[in-house]
Amino acid sequence: MTISPLAPTSTPEIAPVAGVTLAASAAGVRYSGRTDVMLARIAPESSIAGVFTKSSTRSSSVLWCQDVLADGGHAPDGKPLGIIVNSGNANAFTGRAGDESVAAVGAAVAKILGTNERAIYQASTGVIGERLPHAKIEAVLDDLNARLSPDAWHEAAAAIMTTDTFPKLASATAEIDGKIVTISGFTKGSGMIAPDMATMLGFIFTDAAIAPGALQTMLREATDGSFNAITVDSDTSTSDTVLLAATGQAGNAVVTDASDARASGFRAALDGVMRDLAHQIVRDGEGATKFIEVNVTGAETDAAARVIALAIANSPLVKTAFAGEDPNWGRIVMAVGKSGESADRDRLTIRFGDILVAENGWVAETYREDDGAAYMKGAELAVNVDVGVGEGRSTVWTCDLTHRYIEINADYRS
Amino acid sequence: MTISPLAPTSTPEIAPVAGVTLAASAAGVRYSGRTDVMLARIAPESSIAGVFTKSSTRSSSVLWCQDVLADGGHAPDGKPLGIIVNSGNANAFTGRAGDESVAAVGAAVAKILGTNERAIYQASTGVIGERLPHAKIEAVLDDLNARLSPDAWHEAAAAIMTTDTFPKLASATAEIDGKIVTISGFTKGSGMIAPDMATMLGFIFTDAAIAPGALQTMLREATDGSFNAITVDSDTSTSDTVLLAATGQAGNAVVTDASDARASGFRAALDGVMRDLAHQIVRDGEGATKFIEVNVTGAETDAAARVIALAIANSPLVKTAFAGEDPNWGRIVMAVGKSGESADRDRLTIRFGDILVAENGWVAETYREDDGAAYMKGAELAVNVDVGVGEGRSTVWTCDLTHRYIEINADYRS
Repeated sequence: MTISPLAPTSTPEIAPVAGVTLAASAAGVRYSGRTDVMLARIAPESSIAGVFTKSSTRSSSVLWCQDVLADGGHAPDGKPLGIIVNSGNANAFTGRAGDESVAAVGAAVAKILGTNERAIYQASTGVIGERLPHAKIEAVLDDLNARLSPDAWHEAAAAIMTTDTFPKLASATAEIDGKIVTISGFTKGSGMIAPDMATMLGFIFTDAAIAPGALQTMLREATDGSFNAITVDSDTSTSDTVLLAATGQAGNAVVTDASDARASGFRAALDGVMRDLAHQIVRDGEGATKFIEVNVTGAETDAAARVIALAIANSPLVKTAFAGEDPNWGRIVMAVGKSGESADRDRLTIRFGDILVAENGWVAETYREDDGAAYMKGAELAVNVDVGVGEGRSTVWTCDLTHRYIEINADYRS
Repeated sequence: MTISPLAPTSTPEIAPVAGVTLAASAAGVRYSGRTDVMLARIAPESSIAGVFTKSSTRSSSVLWCQDVLADGGHAPDGKPLGIIVNSGNANAFTGRAGDESVAAVGAAVAKILGTNERAIYQASTGVIGERLPHAKIEAVLDDLNARLSPDAWHEAAAAIMTTDTFPKLASATAEIDGKIVTISGFTKGSGMIAPDMATMLGFIFTDAAIAPGALQTMLREATDGSFNAITVDSDTSTSDTVLLAATGQAGNAVVTDASDARASGFRAALDGVMRDLAHQIVRDGEGATKFIEVNVTGAETDAAARVIALAIANSPLVKTAFAGEDPNWGRIVMAVGKSGESADRDRLTIRFGDILVAENGWVAETYREDDGAAYMKGAELAVNVDVGVGEGRSTVWTCDLTHRYIEINADYRS
């Protein structure tokens, strides 16, 4: 598989996180000749938080994770948490067999880690509607457990890939109470979904000490500006899952309130790691040749700005114009108009990067089509739109819609 | 331009409508070597109704039509109504110049037809953001007026085409009070929009006598099951306009209430004409090779069913699967899930045509992939989904998403 032209040019250094060990293995769930199962062991007394797809047809593993989180979500005293992830099969729309697979894998991982099965989080990504061959996963658990390592980040990130063309990792540090805390994580996804391929999964770990409620708030808010602010094709997976675990081994006094000023540096670093990971997903968007930032300002509310930004970012006509390097600002006007949110046609301003394209309800006097066309040749593009009715703002990221997207997704499944 | 493979194989016979005359001319607004302006004269004492795009960036001509309709919308006693339409330029996002063009064209057409300018309805379709060269339209008005004919339906339909590969017309008759009434109309559009090409316009005429309020209700409800039930690419034009004029020359006693039983046959015929026209738009969808009907049943409400049906019909992953003749029912499950409407994963039923594909939350025991693959080879396909929670139902129509769509829309604009 050819690596995306928008992939990062170097492999990031990922710092270990005290209390977290990882391993990957080749179970042959669907693929051969590559790893496809990842196990993470998270030390006793850790906190965990999660956000999930809102799909009404979400997978058995998503339902399981939501259930155990709602139930407190933590391991018994002195026992570790575990995360087990497979690629190749989504275990989605598999009826009761799906629940049986989750139960079987959970029990097996719990046994090998010496913990309770309700301390085991699961995610599956791959083809929909085929029974998960969970015995294949169980068969590699001894091997995974024997090889758990604080340094196996790249191996773990590679094992959860489906149509991804590169593994996606990020790492950062911050300070809480004068203690250095580390955040490291990885993600996968290259369409927002393709049932046989490209669910979005993300796993982030820190050694900061943060209580579960605060951790959940931090994760939810960081998701809003990262994984929930990207779109490749507007489609939503049955399996999207992001988990954030905090081991508390960095030695800071536990943060119990997400708005605690002591945690502001940590939250900024978490935002940065998650945004970096989310951008890598867009950069690996199926068939993508352009990385596009859409900034909307002047909307009635931030939520309205988000709706407008997504209307632009999801418009097939906008996305094909970018693919064709066509500075077709009329399609931006159309997308703003169709969003359903308030915009003042006669105060609408559109910029490609810094180039003023349209203002006051018409093309700008200073705009020259050659400037727009030259700008579009770049691989990293920004569309800046002010809709002229308020103070609401939002930024989302997307990619272009190319022939390669059609090739990838119109190919026969088997 | 190659005619769509889904085009009707024969040209429909269009019956004249007493009180309606039409003409087309080549004004050179943008295109050369073809007609691009259409004029319709509608006899005095006619009723007119309209439905329009909800875009907040809608064009000057849409704003004009909405304004005159809100104001009563009818011609002075003894004076005709007129409809003037050009292709090649949408007169959208053209600031104050757009309003000036509408005023100039309206005054010129009113003068030539001997009526008030507020009895002149206008529509423009074509490139966004360029000043409408309205003098070119004014220059052909004498010629248009001289050639107004009760039989120029095909000429009128051809003049309003943009990227359309065939003109789209339909005609039907019904009975009111024992009088035969005729309905004839035409439409254009091949993406839901491309700012430089494919706005949806529709013009329907009848000689039935129907009061304005009743006509508006009939049009709005017929639109719901026709033009508002189709999608090519989920994008919404700045210029979408449907007008329905009733001359009253058939001689029935005037219908003043849309629910009047006397009009039930007429309404069924109107629904049929408008659905036929809407289907022709999908059949001319940019790059389309498959005509797809999506039926959703078992939703909480009809509105919820519509949302689910559109989630399926607009999903790039569903549309590319159809393009690839891939019976990828997992993508249908995904689209149902992402719609945001209630669905019972474990009672979801999916059929391709009559072929039961999935039921009870899993692939059906009787389903064979070969049957699904064979079905997908057809050009006319149906996806039938029951979501298992209520009695709501909706049908929408769409086409597949192909390489040709990317070619058409990623090409440089000029």
